[in-house]
Amino acid sequence: MSVSVHLGDNKYGKAEVRVVRVVRDTARHEITDLNVTSQLRGAALESSYLTGDNSKVVATDTQKNVVYAFASEHGITSPEEFLLLLGDHFTGEFDWITGGLWQAELYEWERIVVDGAGHDHSFVRKGRATRLATVQKTGGATHVTAGLKDLTVLKSTGSEFHGFPRDRYTTLVETDDRILATSVTARWRYLPEAVAAGIDFNGAYDAIGAAMLSAFATTHSLALQQSLYEMGRAAIEACDGVAEIRFAMPNKHHFLSDLSPFGLKNPNEVFHAADRPYGLIEGTVVRDGVTPAPEAWTDVPSSV
Amino acid sequence: MSVSVHLGDNKYGKAEVRVVRVVRDTARHEITDLNVTSQLRGAALESSYLTGDNSKVVATDTQKNVVYAFASEHGITSPEEFLLLLGDHFTGEFDWITGGLWQAELYEWERIVVDGAGHDHSFVRKGRATRLATVQKTGGATHVTAGLKDLTVLKSTGSEFHGFPRDRYTTLVETDDRILATSVTARWRYLPEAVAAGIDFNGAYDAIGAAMLSAFATTHSLALQQSLYEMGRAAIEACDGVAEIRFAMPNKHHFLSDLSPFGLKNPNEVFHAADRPYGLIEGTVVRDGVTPAPEAWTDVPSSV
Amino acid sequence: MSVSVHLGDNKYGKAEVRVVRVVRDTARHEITDLNVTSQLRGAALESSYLTGDNSKVVATDTQKNVVYAFASEHGITSPEEFLLLLGDHFTGEFDWITGGLWQAELYEWERIVVDGAGHDHSFVRKGRATRLATVQKTGGATHVTAGLKDLTVLKSTGSEFHGFPRDRYTTLVETDDRILATSVTARWRYLPEAVAAGIDFNGAYDAIGAAMLSAFATTHSLALQQSLYEMGRAAIEACDGVAEIRFAMPNKHHFLSDLSPFGLKNPNEVFHAADRPYGLIEGTVVRDGVTPAPEAWTDVPSSV
Amino acid sequence: MSVSVHLGDNKYGKAEVRVVRVVRDTARHEITDLNVTSQLRGAALESSYLTGDNSKVVATDTQKNVVYAFASEHGITSPEEFLLLLGDHFTGEFDWITGGLWQAELYEWERIVVDGAGHDHSFVRKGRATRLATVQKTGGATHVTAGLKDLTVLKSTGSEFHGFPRDRYTTLVETDDRILATSVTARWRYLPEAVAAGIDFNGAYDAIGAAMLSAFATTHSLALQQSLYEMGRAAIEACDGVAEIRFAMPNKHHFLSDLSPFGLKNPNEVFHAADRPYGLIEGTVVRDGVTPAPEAWTDVPSSV
Repeated sequence: MSVSVHLGDNKYGKAEVRVVRVVRDTARHEITDLNVTSQLRGAALESSYLTGDNSKVVATDTQKNVVYAFASEHGITSPEEFLLLLGDHFTGEFDWITGGLWQAELYEWERIVVDGAGHDHSFVRKGRATRLATVQKTGGATHVTAGLKDLTVLKSTGSEFHGFPRDRYTTLVETDDRILATSVTARWRYLPEAVAAGIDFNGAYDAIGAAMLSAFATTHSLALQQSLYEMGRAAIEACDGVAEIRFAMPNKHHFLSDLSPFGLKNPNEVFHAADRPYGLIEGTVVRDGVTPAPEAWTDVPSSV
Repeated sequence: MSVSVHLGDNKYGKAEVRVVRVVRDTARHEITDLNVTSQLRGAALESSYLTGDNSKVVATDTQKNVVYAFASEHGITSPEEFLLLLGDHFTGEFDWITGGLWQAELYEWERIVVDGAGHDHSFVRKGRATRLATVQKTGGATHVTAGLKDLTVLKSTGSEFHGFPRDRYTTLVETDDRILATSVTARWRYLPEAVAAGIDFNGAYDAIGAAMLSAFATTHSLALQQSLYEMGRAAIEACDGVAEIRFAMPNKHHFLSDLSPFGLKNPNEVFHAADRPYGLIEGTVVRDGVTPAPEAWTDVPSSV
Repeated sequence: MSVSVHLGDNKYGKAEVRVVRVVRDTARHEITDLNVTSQLRGAALESSYLTGDNSKVVATDTQKNVVYAFASEHGITSPEEFLLLLGDHFTGEFDWITGGLWQAELYEWERIVVDGAGHDHSFVRKGRATRLATVQKTGGATHVTAGLKDLTVLKSTGSEFHGFPRDRYTTLVETDDRILATSVTARWRYLPEAVAAGIDFNGAYDAIGAAMLSAFATTHSLALQQSLYEMGRAAIEACDGVAEIRFAMPNKHHFLSDLSPFGLKNPNEVFHAADRPYGLIEGTVVRDGVTPAPEAWTDVPSSV
Repeated sequence: MSVSVHLGDNKYGKAEVRVVRVVRDTARHEITDLNVTSQLRGAALESSYLTGDNSKVVATDTQKNVVYAFASEHGITSPEEFLLLLGDHFTGEFDWITGGLWQAELYEWERIVVDGAGHDHSFVRKGRATRLATVQKTGGATHVTAGLKDLTVLKSTGSEFHGFPRDRYTTLVETDDRILATSVTARWRYLPEAVAAGIDFNGAYDAIGAAMLSAFATTHSLALQQSLYEMGRAAIEACDGVAEIRFAMPNKHHFLSDLSPFGLKNPNEVFHAADRPYGLIEGTVVRDGVTPAPEAWTDVPSSV
């Protein structure tokens, strides 16, 4: 039996190109450690799917080569600017490449402290979170998003959860004091005008991260949803260039250990940190008045 | 500084509820092993984000309870039917829940063979792939997608790659005989009319999986893109109820080992299986004439 | 402050060399997919630690090269024979290399079925367990161990647990019918005389694996410890060449879901598959009369 | 066929008990976050393996309960002291428990900074390394080891590798300037007299960690082996109570990108961070004159 089919959305490229760039102009080195993914789109690429005609397929190996070459030729001032360079290159060099998605993870390193001072060329990986960046080129426009993942935070008090509806399947006990813990994945979109104006992506990242942490700490939380919203508001307040911010936040449950069988009280002191299942709270906070750009988010991962 | 913000897209629920259902009506048991995620949407949920008012928040703990209760009350005939039950329950029971996304992974087990026959109640996990299912309820409609991930396949010949454009950054050598290997992630959408007609989801899954494997094997491949397309065509041919199918297929590079420094020839016999970077080929194959339903895919993971 | 220190046990080498060997003498290909680690020992290597003098350091890169070269020159008939070749090479070629540990993981592939028959050159990864092998050379002797990991098995009945002591901290309820599930890690040592006689390692692996599965299935279990012991006995019975076998078996708890709040009975039908914590049962079963060889196990991983 | 077998080494218990302890005596909370594994040994446990007689089996569930109860009753001053309490409890309470292995991982958290000051009850997970501790009770003695894993460090210069022997299989080029990177796993044994004297385990951990980092930074490295040895010496110098220290250090290769095809020079600026294979360097540094205690290390994981 033969049916009629056609090709829908598609893209292709090279994923997880691990490039480390050392700036060694002076004895005090700087390092940038990226994991880059480059994927291209364009109607002319269809023939590779339909017939294996690769005449328009910029090889994924070539995309990889450009990552290393550009790290040399242009350096890496920020992951966002590096991805913008990649995007401009591929859409500029090959007229049939009409768009694509470029993604990066950045791993932060800090100087090893020797006798109270940071060493010139020895580093230890920070490990507290992973910085994220994407550039989306579609329909002639360029969108930049940034973010972070694996930022794990916990409040040992200042979190309640009650007032939820009860039905036949509800057994959860209400609480006015619990541990609240989550591993934050956040991605925010920069306003096109901020990108055009040459926003300081590194400074913005630092300011937004600090604002989210502070908001998590200072929000007396009645629901993880509420903490999420306040973190989003704080991020937008911290940076004029942010249009909107998306969160995926697992509620990493810490269950109070029942010590009563052992004749012990447990005044919120001993908890079991559970793995699965976990709550999963997702939401977007949007600056009032910005022009929506859902196409900026196409294929950008949202998962925890 | 205070800025004006509002809440955008959101959903919440319980993720990775690990439920194992044993059917033990006879001495020959059956087991179903699922990992279920339930997430709800509805305008009334906004207050939990804005003010921590949980009066409309069906607790994620309650959503978990329903998974276990329904596994008892209704059994699990297929992951798709189980998720449909969950979706109908939450949108039916709580009038402010207007939609949601329900996802499942299914882990396959096979009977342990003892003296040539499958044992009644002892099983070994198959491990060859993980079955996927989702139910999306949005805008009054219900969409069902199914799929699989981690299906790792390899062709030791019958794969070429050449004819791609060459520029300053191109170094890849053309080849007319290489190893082609990938780990298939595929998700297909069932036609609403097939769902309404009570399609056999388990039978469809088996048929589609077999068709994809066969197409991978028998396609002489000029590009992984071409293999993807032929696998999609085969899947759609194998099941009348499939509207479209999406693939994410990493090109798991196997590089020919250079043995010439040791005075050895390597006629495509010895390969290095590389980790990163890898090619990443994505594409959708669509049955001609079906009504598009992009909303079916909202927040459905596409990642490798 | 300066203290006097010296170098203790040490070894070095190249880990996780991913080699895929294709036998393509006929159109019906065979593939072997290994992950090989080679590490060397010898007193002369001490100078690399003490002063950075590398004059005796067979480079880890060289060790990697030998893996690929030997895959070509000798083929890979079994992981055990391949590791024996590596061990003989390094201790034979460099007189200061007096021992070492060579390890391999083997990933099994099966032919893709097309029209009812296995395809000539298209394969799907089996995924049910990973085969393990090690060769230890120490003190002039050579020891061969083999094994498997990630063999996940489950009995839906035929498992009890009761009769354990109760004290102040005991809350576990006794049961005479529970799910028993584990992920088996097993490693067995071959008798030196069996290795010398040219035992069929592939046949032995298959026979031992089948025997362990069968024993798990047919043992009515009063404790996972008992299942472990019977699996060990079965393995030793299945192969004359096995001296002893070590197991690490997590008790993957499946907790009966408490459905009573919902007015439902749960006659061992619905379970929550828990992640952590898990029981961890370890034990060795030894053939009576064999000469102990604890040095065979030095640095061989035992972890789950 | 029946063969005669017997039980060899064995132990059993509960693994990965995730306990979080909050000290909330004042508004400024402290948290300790542990992953605890408890395993018991004793000849009387043999019957559970041989016949499923559990009359001496302190249930793994009971072992878990004791972890939570002790976290309440005794608090957690250090992972080492907590494990010592556990070990004393089980060997003291049950006279047939003659030994065991208790292990912990500790995850470090730091206070979230709000307006320049650490918050009272809000924390962010540090993520830079995981602290390790074990207590081994065997043969009437008690041994304490401590350590860390996943401490990832990198030198962008100050590392050479040359002078190694060359043979038929050697292709590696000598270098006098390369990136040196590794992820340190280290475990050190405390002298029994230091444990008896009440050594400050937390202070020792901090001092040893800092000393190892500093030694890595300041050692001009001719081989990763040499860096390992200097790190071990520094650890032993940093703490009088350390008898010996074991390392497993993967050489995380950073390969210089070949940019010559693109007409670019690469003066040690752009690198590819490779995954597999990797060098694997292991070694022990021992304080002169200490009494060896190999039994302290039985079943203590050494893996990278």
